[in-house]
Formats: sequence, C-alpha cells, structure tokens
Amino acid sequence: MRTINFNAGPAALPLPALERAQRELLDFAQSGMSVMEHSHRGKQYEAVHDEALSLIRELLGVPDDYDVLFLQGGATQQFAMVPMNLLPAGKSADYVVTGAWGEKAFSEAKTVGKMLGATARLALSTGVGDGKEKSYTRAPSSSEFTSAVDPAAAYVHYTSNETIHGVEIFDVPSVGAVPLVCDMSSDFLWRKVDVSKFGLIYAGAQKNLGPSGVTVVIAKKSLVASGRSDIPKIFQYRVHAENKSLYNTPPTFGVYLARNVLSWIKDSGGLAQIEAWNREKARLLYGALDAHPDFYRCPVEKSARSVMNVVFRLPTEALEEELIAAAKAAKMVGIKGHRSVGGIRVSTYNAVSVEWVQALVNLLDEFARARR
Amino acid sequence: MRTINFNAGPAALPLPALERAQRELLDFAQSGMSVMEHSHRGKQYEAVHDEALSLIRELLGVPDDYDVLFLQGGATQQFAMVPMNLLPAGKSADYVVTGAWGEKAFSEAKTVGKMLGATARLALSTGVGDGKEKSYTRAPSSSEFTSAVDPAAAYVHYTSNETIHGVEIFDVPSVGAVPLVCDMSSDFLWRKVDVSKFGLIYAGAQKNLGPSGVTVVIAKKSLVASGRSDIPKIFQYRVHAENKSLYNTPPTFGVYLARNVLSWIKDSGGLAQIEAWNREKARLLYGALDAHPDFYRCPVEKSARSVMNVVFRLPTEALEEELIAAAKAAKMVGIKGHRSVGGIRVSTYNAVSVEWVQALVNLLDEFARARR
Repeated sequence: MRTINFNAGPAALPLPALERAQRELLDFAQSGMSVMEHSHRGKQYEAVHDEALSLIRELLGVPDDYDVLFLQGGATQQFAMVPMNLLPAGKSADYVVTGAWGEKAFSEAKTVGKMLGATARLALSTGVGDGKEKSYTRAPSSSEFTSAVDPAAAYVHYTSNETIHGVEIFDVPSVGAVPLVCDMSSDFLWRKVDVSKFGLIYAGAQKNLGPSGVTVVIAKKSLVASGRSDIPKIFQYRVHAENKSLYNTPPTFGVYLARNVLSWIKDSGGLAQIEAWNREKARLLYGALDAHPDFYRCPVEKSARSVMNVVFRLPTEALEEELIAAAKAAKMVGIKGHRSVGGIRVSTYNAVSVEWVQALVNLLDEFARARR
Repeated sequence: MRTINFNAGPAALPLPALERAQRELLDFAQSGMSVMEHSHRGKQYEAVHDEALSLIRELLGVPDDYDVLFLQGGATQQFAMVPMNLLPAGKSADYVVTGAWGEKAFSEAKTVGKMLGATARLALSTGVGDGKEKSYTRAPSSSEFTSAVDPAAAYVHYTSNETIHGVEIFDVPSVGAVPLVCDMSSDFLWRKVDVSKFGLIYAGAQKNLGPSGVTVVIAKKSLVASGRSDIPKIFQYRVHAENKSLYNTPPTFGVYLARNVLSWIKDSGGLAQIEAWNREKARLLYGALDAHPDFYRCPVEKSARSVMNVVFRLPTEALEEELIAAAKAAKMVGIKGHRSVGGIRVSTYNAVSVEWVQALVNLLDEFARARR
C-alpha cells in the first residue's frame, strides 16, 4: 500500500510518473538501455529533454520571448546566480522578505553584491521579532509591496510561497518597469501564472515537478541577454540558454522524470484541473482546522494562507507529537513542522490527492474531538 | 537484450545497480514510497546518503583528514568552484593542460581570477597547433610536470584522464608542497589511488559512479578550512562539509543510485578486481588495434593511452562511419568520437564488461580483415 505522503520536499510524486519510470528503467524506448545510460547528446535523450521544455511552455503558456532552462543546484544556487547575472556593478537590487527562504536569498545576494561591487537592499520584510528566527505570518498588501520598491533597482526579488512559514503571495506584485524575480520553488505549477509579468522565475523541482537535482529557470530573453558576462560561464543564464540547457551534462534522469510528471499534469487536464484539486484540498484542510479554533491554531493571516504548505499548531507540543504519531499509525508521513519553527506542516503539492487530504481531515477532526 | 554501451558519459551502469533501483522504485525500504519521495532530512534517505559517503571512503581508503562531498553541477561547475574556494586574492594558480577539459578548466579559472583579484597561469600545455582546436596526444613526463609548477602557486590543477583525447596521466605528479587538484571525472574509481597525495579531487558521477547530476569532491580538510569565505555560501566547500552535503537538498535519487553502484563495486571484490577488469579490457582493445597498425591508428602515445577512453582512427572517415554502422547492427552503441575531434572513441568504464569488449574486439578484427 502506498504511504500518504505530506513531505515538504522532496515530496510525493504522481504514481503514474513513477510507474512509467519503473517500467522502462532498464529499457528506455526499446533501446536496451536505461535513460540514465543514454548520452545527453543522443537523439533519444534529446527528445525527452525537448518534450519536458515544451510541456512547461505549453502548460504555463510561456511567451516566446522567454527562455526555459534546466539547471542544477536547487533554488539555493539561484540565490547566488540571480544577482551574479542580474546585478550590475554599482547597482542595487531589492529584496522583499516574507519568510526564511527570502532571508536566505537576501543574505546570499548581499555576499554577491560585495563580491561584484554592487548592493542588495532589504526593501521590505514582514518578519516580526529581533531574534535570529523571526516570525512571519502575513503577505504584504499590493500597495505596500509596490511602494517599497526602488524604481531604480536592478530587479526586485520575492518568494511567492514560503514553505516553512506557510505564507503565500497570491497576486503578482506590480513593480512598474523593475524586473520582477520570483522564487516559485514551492508553488510552481500549482496553477497557471501570467509569466509575462515576471523578469525571471525559478524553482527547485522537488515540490511539484520532479525529483531533487533539477532547477527550472524561466527568464525574459532580454534580461538573459543583458546579464553580466564577467562571471564564470557555468553560472551565466546566457550560456545555458544558447545551449538549450545542454552546455554541460544535465541531470538526465531528473529531467526525464520531470517530463513524466509534466505529462501526467497534461493528461490530468492541465493546470486548470490541478488548480481545482489544489483549491479543494486547501478548502478541506483549512476548513477542518477552522472548525476547531480552540484546538488548532493557524498562525498565518487568512489571506496569505499557503495552498501548498498548511502550517498550524496544537495546544501543546506533546499533543503535536501525539498527532504525528497518530498520523503515522494511519500510514501518513511528513506532517512534522520544519525544525526551525516546530508545530505541524502539511504539504499538499500536486501529487497529493484530494482523497489523501480527506483522510487527514478525518483524522484531524477525530483527534480534536477526542483530545480537547 | 541489453545493448552493449560504450558511451562516454552518461555511460553504462552496472545492471545489478539498475535492477535494484527498478525493484524498489515504488517502495523503498518497505516505506510505501519511492526513495525520491523521501525527505532528505529523514532517517531512511540519510542512511543511503551516509552509506554512499562511507563506501567512497572505504573503497578508496580516503584518509580521515579529508572531506567527501556530494555536490551538483558536474565537473564543469567545479572548474569555477575550485578557484573560487582555493585561489586567494593576489595569488596565482597553475594549470597543466593535456586536453579539452583542462582547457575549459583553465579558461573558467581565468574568469574567476579576474572576478576575485587573482590569477590563473598556464603552467604547461601539451597541445599542438595554433588553431582553436589543438591536438593532444601525450602526457607530460614526471619531471616536466614537476618543473613546470610555480612553488608559490595556490594550487596546481590537472585532468588525470582527458575523455575526448583519450590521454591519461597514470602517475600522480610530484608538486612538493603545492596542493594538487585533479579533475578525475572520467577515471575516478577505475582503480585505487593514493588520496593523500592530493589536495582536492573532483569527479562528475556519470562515468564510473552513477547518473549525471551528482559530483563528488574529496578534499583535504585543511584546504577546505582555509578556503575563501567571501563567496556565496552555496559555492563554499566549507559549508557543504559542515553540513554533510545536506546544506541544501541534494540530488537524492542520484546519490541513491551512486550508493547502488558503490555497493556493486564492493560486492564485485572492490577496486582491485575493478582495476584487473579494466586493465584486461584495455589490453584486449589496444591489442586488437595494434594487431592492425596499417588499418587502425591510435594517435595517443603508448604510455598515455587511456584505460577508460580508447581513441583511434581508421584510414578514412567513410570507413569510420561504416564501422559505427557495423557496431550498431551488432547492438553496440557509443563508439563515435567526440564531435570536436571525430574518429572513434570506445569508453570502457567500470560497468562495461570484459565480454562486451571482447565482442567489440572480434568485430574490429573482422572489420579490419574484410576492409583492408
């Protein structure tokens, strides 16, 4: 029996994508070889690579003047690569921080700034508290976001979904002519998004797209072309764009598996259907929590509650441990909150079914009734 | 039937490692989940991660004062990371170039030097010709290598096996107190090596270790500790060493598969047995070529003939195409030379069996007899 998996990433993958991989693991496309054993310059792998790139374009409606890249190093490497490419000497980039990942992105940008004679500026933080670990429970309003941005900034960076804190920014911020850069790692592909509003989007694959080890970057071609060229080639978006993400050996099996996941999205009815499922899962889950307001407490403001990572607390840490154990007994894993904030976190990425969430909702309901 | 795979990388993987992956792809360690769906911070994945690191230590006899790291980005990313970490401002690093990969490493180091106020110097090149594409057919002698190195260099970098040109340096160069940095991508794990002679070894996995998307770095702890800290965290060896290669999400499936490959090496009798097979394969293959000196021509000097990538030419390009087609008809793939140099290249990494090489040897023999 398949375990009900609410992991925050690496996370559950669609069963059909995994079954396909298993079926052809030793013999890909009647080649007598695993896809992992194919040359990245061979026709058979290249067809997979191209299909994965095309499916991202098709599902998201990526405009023609944007590049789609497969890179390595996760979103964490993008924390450095974004400023290395897009922050010219003498210029400043703006960071809007709404959680722990935004903090990390900003911190790395400051280092890059010092290294390359530029600056990263904290335009806005929603963090509360002086300690090392701030509390984040809200998204800035549209006007708050807009007015915080320096119109002369090289770009403005934000994190659309903060996985640890469960804070999501649903509306694409208006920032005028300043290129908008978004870490979309944990809410990439949960629904269709208007790519044309962004200068650059990046996402680690291990939430909604595939296994860890693949990173997607979607960037406006003009931004890629105007990027710095005084940095190592391997870190230049330009070089990867010119070589269709085959400048060096890509993580071929990861791209193959992403292709399987993207095919599954398409076969399921595309992102409109995926979004409907995701909204239903969030409705069920937050509904169950709100039904027991004296037992479950969601720290995040309602308008910023993440559709992907549902974060909440119980009256005591002992009860939280008990809930985790009860879930485990029911073959549900991955609901322990991030080590930095504690509590409970339920990640409901695309491959988490409505049925799985319903099973958890039943448990949450029973648990609250029995314990309070 | 399994195709006989002489690909240069990604390359053939040991069948038992793939079969193990296929068997447990949907249900890893009775968890009801794929290993790809496990958290990288969970006990089950961590056991795999630790086992892979331990097996590298055990098989190679890595001394305790060395870190073993799993990174992303391939050897190409190491071309930048090595100087970013190990080349202090105002200092110079030496590069010994014996083929196309060494050229790339040196070129990237020059860019890093300019970026960080340091220098990369071409200490020695065995390239012949003025054009963009030099010819490389030999390894420097020990004394030539030693005398080329500046004793004040921050480190000296070389490529122990040049995959494209088929040139291998078998003896570890003596460079006194200068830290020796080696790109061992295509001859990592073909035999045991005395790690203590190196400051840092790196290798992309996709030759002898696993699928593409995983990079191994073995580095002396003192070198890691003294590395630059004014570069982005994600590029600091120190950060990965301190976090046991779990600073950010590692390519979990790639590490898992590397574990399977390392287990296969151990179960096969360790690196002594692997080396014996590799020497036998090289003996068979070069023997077949040397038996027809008027038909097959190996451009590389005998003492530098690679044990991993056997490069040769036929009298005409038309005959080379014919040989490739004859091999394909016999279910053998991957013998076309690199697009930059042409000819034939047969890669005989660890997972290529003596039987496979014998089958090719028979074909080469018949082909020469029939065509000359």
